[in-house]
Formats: sequence, structure tokens, C-alpha cells
Amino acid sequence: MFKLKAKIIDVETGGIPVISLNEEFANKNDFHPMDRVIVKFKNRSLVAAIDTSEKIITEDEIGLFEDVWKKLRIKEGDEVEITPVEKPESTKFIRKKMDREELSKEEIFKIVKDIVEDKLTDVELTAFVSASYMEGLSMQETASLTRAIVDTGGRLRLKKKIIADKHSIGGVPGNRVTMVIVPIITSLGITMPKTSSRAITSPAGTADTMEVLADVSFSIEELTEIVKKTNGCIAWGGAINLAAADDKLIRVRHPLSLDPEGLMLASVMAKKVAVGATHVVFDLPVGEEAKLHSLGEARHLERMFKRLADVFKIKIRTIVTDGNEPIGHGIGPSLEARDVLWLLKNDRRAPMDLRRKSVLLAGKLLELIGYAKEGTGEKIAEKQIKNGKAYKKFMEIIEAQGGNPKIKPEDLPIGEFKCDYEAEKYGRIDNIDNKAISKIARAAGCPIDKEAGIYLYKHYGEVVKPGEKIFTVYSRSERRIERAIKLMNELSPITIK
Amino acid sequence: MFKLKAKIIDVETGGIPVISLNEEFANKNDFHPMDRVIVKFKNRSLVAAIDTSEKIITEDEIGLFEDVWKKLRIKEGDEVEITPVEKPESTKFIRKKMDREELSKEEIFKIVKDIVEDKLTDVELTAFVSASYMEGLSMQETASLTRAIVDTGGRLRLKKKIIADKHSIGGVPGNRVTMVIVPIITSLGITMPKTSSRAITSPAGTADTMEVLADVSFSIEELTEIVKKTNGCIAWGGAINLAAADDKLIRVRHPLSLDPEGLMLASVMAKKVAVGATHVVFDLPVGEEAKLHSLGEARHLERMFKRLADVFKIKIRTIVTDGNEPIGHGIGPSLEARDVLWLLKNDRRAPMDLRRKSVLLAGKLLELIGYAKEGTGEKIAEKQIKNGKAYKKFMEIIEAQGGNPKIKPEDLPIGEFKCDYEAEKYGRIDNIDNKAISKIARAAGCPIDKEAGIYLYKHYGEVVKPGEKIFTVYSRSERRIERAIKLMNELSPITIK
Repeated sequence: MFKLKAKIIDVETGGIPVISLNEEFANKNDFHPMDRVIVKFKNRSLVAAIDTSEKIITEDEIGLFEDVWKKLRIKEGDEVEITPVEKPESTKFIRKKMDREELSKEEIFKIVKDIVEDKLTDVELTAFVSASYMEGLSMQETASLTRAIVDTGGRLRLKKKIIADKHSIGGVPGNRVTMVIVPIITSLGITMPKTSSRAITSPAGTADTMEVLADVSFSIEELTEIVKKTNGCIAWGGAINLAAADDKLIRVRHPLSLDPEGLMLASVMAKKVAVGATHVVFDLPVGEEAKLHSLGEARHLERMFKRLADVFKIKIRTIVTDGNEPIGHGIGPSLEARDVLWLLKNDRRAPMDLRRKSVLLAGKLLELIGYAKEGTGEKIAEKQIKNGKAYKKFMEIIEAQGGNPKIKPEDLPIGEFKCDYEAEKYGRIDNIDNKAISKIARAAGCPIDKEAGIYLYKHYGEVVKPGEKIFTVYSRSERRIERAIKLMNELSPITIK
Repeated sequence: MFKLKAKIIDVETGGIPVISLNEEFANKNDFHPMDRVIVKFKNRSLVAAIDTSEKIITEDEIGLFEDVWKKLRIKEGDEVEITPVEKPESTKFIRKKMDREELSKEEIFKIVKDIVEDKLTDVELTAFVSASYMEGLSMQETASLTRAIVDTGGRLRLKKKIIADKHSIGGVPGNRVTMVIVPIITSLGITMPKTSSRAITSPAGTADTMEVLADVSFSIEELTEIVKKTNGCIAWGGAINLAAADDKLIRVRHPLSLDPEGLMLASVMAKKVAVGATHVVFDLPVGEEAKLHSLGEARHLERMFKRLADVFKIKIRTIVTDGNEPIGHGIGPSLEARDVLWLLKNDRRAPMDLRRKSVLLAGKLLELIGYAKEGTGEKIAEKQIKNGKAYKKFMEIIEAQGGNPKIKPEDLPIGEFKCDYEAEKYGRIDNIDNKAISKIARAAGCPIDKEAGIYLYKHYGEVVKPGEKIFTVYSRSERRIERAIKLMNELSPITIK
């Protein structure tokens, strides 16, 4: 045990709390970077990881980052105690996985718990993600991981016999089927408490787009109330921490661009288990610039989802869809929300591809549940749009989520700065590059700037003339529209043949 | 490009330079933790990794850790520019290795160069070490890595036809054969520029022990002069950065306790190539508590070293030795240095096991070089000790390294606080636990406290009576001797049967 003088470092760090020790002091006393110590002040304490500093921290000082001094209520110059402490047991299990051994349910649970509680360093998180990627997770391990993510995260308990859900694998801009499917399903009296994510690398996640029309951040209690009232919701999953472990792992997965299959499967399925889903439709878009590049990949994923769903007694249906180009006209929160409103209001400006896809998925979901006979689901779904019941239900949900149920599509503000992308030659649109479109929309301000985005006038296969508008980019800021234009000229978002 | 107001953070971080951005600002502008930016101030710039801070750093501020503000000479409130920048190409090669593909010479070189230049984040370093551990490195990759470590580190250029060297695999306390072998070999007119390491987890490295008698930190120029004068040296390799890449990797290898074979082989061989070694003897101690646990492991390592040495046209000889108990009487810098002096002075207090082992290894080295015929090397080595020529040469080297050539073994200070470990029963010593002995010696203050350590009166197989002293622990500090005593009572360093 050592007593050191606190030096306040006025900045936060992510992940495990960090302290800084003088390098020579650390060497002398056998402390190494990323070793752990218990930091104690009065009757308060926490475990922190060590960083070392050559000169700025002296031998009788300890540098405390905000996570530490705030939680322990330490002030500059206070006397702080540190005691070395062993690594958590979960680090042994990470090592075991690196040694290519299968982990037990308990071992995986301990790893996940320590991840959620910020007890692991980035180095340890990375080793776990790397090992999961290189060695893969067995179905048994994936199921254990799913269970652990559920048990360490938030849960909805709705006490319904049937709870419908859906999931789309990402990579397709504008794919806002959720905002059409939930109104259709819930307008038929079926419970569908949908939680969605925000954009990570896309122009908008469903949570970002729904936020244009209503609040999306609710506690579990609030969400339960909303679903009781309206049969459904379209909320941000992050607010109720459905997969807290997963959110923590993003910290190291993003810089490595690693998405180990086992972690992905567990993360998706955990969110379904956490809302109590009994029937789930999976939308698997395949396309050159989508997440799934081939039908083979989609078929493999289907099998894995089926096996995992079996473990949790969830009935699923997977549908491979076209992921080669964006869905809908609008890309970006406001533009997408407008598409959805037009669609549910049977406005002629509604994008037909979004409508067709939503009806297909909603229909399959109705058949899976047993509400519709095989082959009749789409007809029922279609009817709910046509007769305005889905629209009415959507307005109910918007109102329950604190939004304005009288909102008109035309009221939604769209960025004042804009620029058209025009066809350079006569021909047929041969490709719309999802990734390029995403990048341009993000440069314009998506997803934080709700008014930013892209409006697509043309889709794959349509004929264009030189000078004809293919899409318009919108932004609220002049600087951002300029960045978007620059990118638009650098990338090749559209191929005409 | 963004302009932000500098907020000085008065602490260093290890590895790649780090800056802190406001979390919301980062989200809005698509900056993620551990992404890289170019930080620019006036005409100076560097690449740093991003950390994010929820509140303390505001949206128009940038938090600068010492490595950044010092190098760019930035003061609080200065306007600093940041521009996003792509990850270095080497991160793609790390990813390639994670995908189990073999890396080319050029790819490995780029990874090593970026490691040495602190261009990789801990997450990326960890992914590389994890992949090297899980997938292993091919002989081709190991050779490329060796070459890359040499090319990015320091080198000695001695222009000698024969340059002798040795290497001991670790884990055996007191194994100070280098300090006996170098005097023997160099006293025969053979060049042996030995560089050694400091202790990482042991009570003393050869560099720590030699430092009791002379300086060990020299520039390449100084070392070249010393070797020209005396034929040899016993210096700290870290000072001339023989394997800079390796030192950087310790940062993530230590917390994971990972020692991927390919990295180890490359690191050892690179140090030999870097001093221009032509003939090298490898000491491979096998023992339950040594690094090598079985003869099989040692044989495997032999083969790997031979194959790697062939690539660099180095002739080697490997010798499997007994690593079951410490070598010599003294453990800890001063106590070991005293053993070596006694040995070279033919004092009856010299430890015979250290003498036998040193003569064996020196003899094999003489045979390998061709100085002695097969079977006669040991005799020649033995003679150099007996006739005092090795001692005389050692004093020359000590003097050349700035030490006192008139130093007497009895002059070396030993810690004033001490405690005896006595036999509890009558019997034969069945085991001396290397790891327990190391821990006790380190608790007493080794390697920083040169006077701390353990003096062993008995070795394996010797008969002891109840109350008979088996070893004494020494320390310069009362607090530390108490910690050592506590550990001595908790662990079972000695087994009597």
C-alpha cells in the first residue's frame, strides 16, 4: 500500500478508470502500465488501470483522471492510497479463448459482466474481440454470450403471448421499413415493442429518423406504458441499454473495423430476447455495397440465426432482399421521415420500393405469427396501409412518444443549402453506390443534422438524359454542403451505362 | 479541418500521442475514439489518436496531453487545427494476419516501423500480438520480423571476422554466466560485445548486476570504443535500442502475459544480428519453474533457433541446462556481482555451480568458433579462470565501462535489514522454487535496490538439519524486508523431503 498526493487531471478517459504514476516510482514498485490498483480515499475506493508518466507526475504524486477524482470526491493535494490488485478472473478466460479452448457459460458471463462494468482495459477487450474473430465462437458460446448480454442489460417484461419483432442487417441507406411495419402490425392488435439503433456509419438509424417525429429515449417503465397504450413503440435501444456489453465493445471494434460473427449474432439476438420477442422476421439485404455481399453469406447467416433462435425458443423467418441500392427516395432523418409519412398517408409521392418491401416483411411476420395464412400476409398488410389504419396507429405511437400527431410531411424542415447531382450522359442507371451515398449524406451533416441528406429521384434501371437530376443533397450549413459537394465529385455515387 | 482552442492536460500518455475531443463534437463530425487526426500548430504538426471526453472538454476545445503540446510548443488557449487522417497502411497488414494470411517481408517491415515510431494504438498493437500468438508466425515471417527489428534499431559495426555471443533463455535466478563467459572469451583475444537486458520479472538482469561494478548505458560509438579497447563489453542493450520494436511491444505483452514464440525468436535473434554476431551459444535451462518446462520444449526451440540462425548465416550451438533451481549463491545485483568476483578470483566462497555452467558454455563457444577442438573447450575456459587472465580482463572491461578495477567483492554493500529462512525439519532439499525466490527477492527491493536479494547457503540435494539456515534475505529498507518476510511465509520457496 502506498500513499500519494493527488494531482487532478482535468479530462475524462473512456472505459476503465485510469490513474497516472511516475514511471520510475512504478518501476521501483513493480507497477506496470495497465496493471490494476485499488485507489482509496477516505471510505471510498475503486479499481483503476495504471498509465505512467516520465516527468510530469513526481514520485510522490498520483495523477487522477476525471472518472477517478469525481467518483471518489478527491481534490488536488489530497492523500490517496493505492494497493496493487490482481486482474479480474475474466482475463484468464480471455486468455483461454486465445488458446483456442471453448468457454463455458459461466466464463462468458464473467467476461461480459466485467465488460459492462468497465473492469477490462482496452488491451484485454481487444484480445477478446481478436480471439472471437480469429477463433470464432461455437453455437454454444454464442448462445451463452446472448444470455449474458441479456442478463447484464435492460429488459422489457410485457406479459404477452405473442410479441412480434424484426431485424434488418445494415448497409442499405434509407431502409426505414421498421417505421412502416410497426404501425401495420400494431394496428392489427399485435404487440410489437421495437427498439432500434442510431447510425454508426450510416446517414441515419431508425432511432435517428423516428426522433424527427417523436422522442425515442425512454426508460423501461416509460416504454412499458407506451406499449400498453398503443401495442407498440419505435424507440432507441441504447436508452434502455438492451445490450450494454455490445455498446462497450464498439470502443475497440470500431478502430479495428472488426465485426466477429459470434458477437454480431449474440448482440442482435440478445436485443430480441430482451424485449421478450416470440416471433421475429429478419431482413437480409444482399448487395455489393451492403453488409452481406452474396447470397451464400446470407444463407449462412440464416442458418446461424435459426440455430440461435431455437435455443431461445424464438420463431423466426429470414427474407433475403435486394441490398444493391438505397431504399426510398429520402436518405437522412427528415427526408426519410417524410417518405414514411407520405407512404402511410397513401400520398403519390411515397417511394414504392419502401412500400413494397415493408408490406413483404410485415406480411411474412403476420404469417409467421399465424395471424395470416401462408400467402395472405401481404394482402392484409397492404390493406392496413390503404384503409389508413396503419397511419392512424402511427400517429397514436407518435403521440404516446411525446410527438405531434398532427405533423404533416410537408412541415418537416429540410436543409436550406442544396446541390443537385445531374446525369452527365444519356443512359440507364446501372448502379447507386450505397457507401458513396452514405458518405455524401454524412458529409452534409447526417445523422446529427436531421435536415441534412439526399433525395433520390431515380433508382436502378431508370433511363436518364444529360442534365437530368438524379439526386439532391441538402444541408443546414454552407460549410457542410461544400464538403458534401467535394465528396460528390470525388466519389462515383452513380454509374450510368 | 477544424480549429479548436488548446486545453493543456498536464500528463503524459504512453505510446501514440493522444488528444481529447468533446464527445458530442466528435460524434457530429464523425470522429471516433482511437481514430487519428493531424494536429497542426503554426508550421508544426503530428499525428495523434482521439480520446473523447463527455463534459470537461467543450465543443470548441481540444485537450492536449504532454507528448502533443510539448512537441508542437502549444500553450493554453492557442488555436490548433485538426484534420482527420487515414490509419497507417500497416493496420491493413495486421488485419491480414488476423485473417490468417502470411505477411510479406515488406508488410512486416511496415508494421515494425510503425511500432517503433509510435504510430499504432494499443488496440492495434494488441491485435498484432494476439494474431501472432494465435496464428503463429511462419519461419519466413519470423525471419522478416528479425530483419525488420534490426533495420529499425541500433547496430554495432565492428568489422571483425569472428564475433562471439551467447543467449540464455530466462527464468533462472542468479544465472550470471555472461559475466564469467565474456571475460574468458575476450581474454583469449576473441571479440564478444555482449548486450544484456534488465530484469522485467526477475530479481536482476545481467545489466542490473553489471551496473553494480560499472556503467552499462552507452551509445553505439562509446560501445564501439570499449570493444576496440578490451575485445568485449557487458552493456545494457536497451540503451542502444537494439530491438526498439520489441521494447514497444512489451507495453501490451505484459498486461496479457503473452510471449508469442515468433516475436520472442525474432527479438533474440535480432539482437545477435545487430551486434554482428557470427557464432552464438544458446543456454536453454529446463525446469518446472523456468521458462522452458520440458526437454521437448527446449528441443523445439533449438530447431527454431537453428533455422532462423541459418537465414542470417550465424553458426549456433544450443545447450540444454538444468533450470530447476537458482544458479549461484547470490540472487540480486550486489550479491550476484560478489559471486562473480569471487569466482574469477578463484576464491573458495565462489559458487561452484555458476563456475561449472560458465565453463561449459564458454568451452562450447570456443569449440563452435573453432578456437578449441571438439572436447577441449572447457579445459581452455577453465585455464583462463585459474590463471587469473579472465579476472584481469574483467577488470579491464570494468575500467573501460567507467567502473573501479580495484573493487573487492567484500566492498560491495549488502542490505542492512535481513532475515534468515531456516529448515523446519531434517531432510534433503528436494526443490528450490525459482518463482518464489524471485518474488521474495523483488519484494525485498530487487532489482532497483542493488543491495537487496537472497543469499542461498544450500542447493538441491543437500542435507539440512532443523534450524539450519537455507537462505538469508537482505534489504535496505525495513518496510521492504517486512514485505519479503511476509511473502517468504506465504510461499513455499523450499521443499525438504
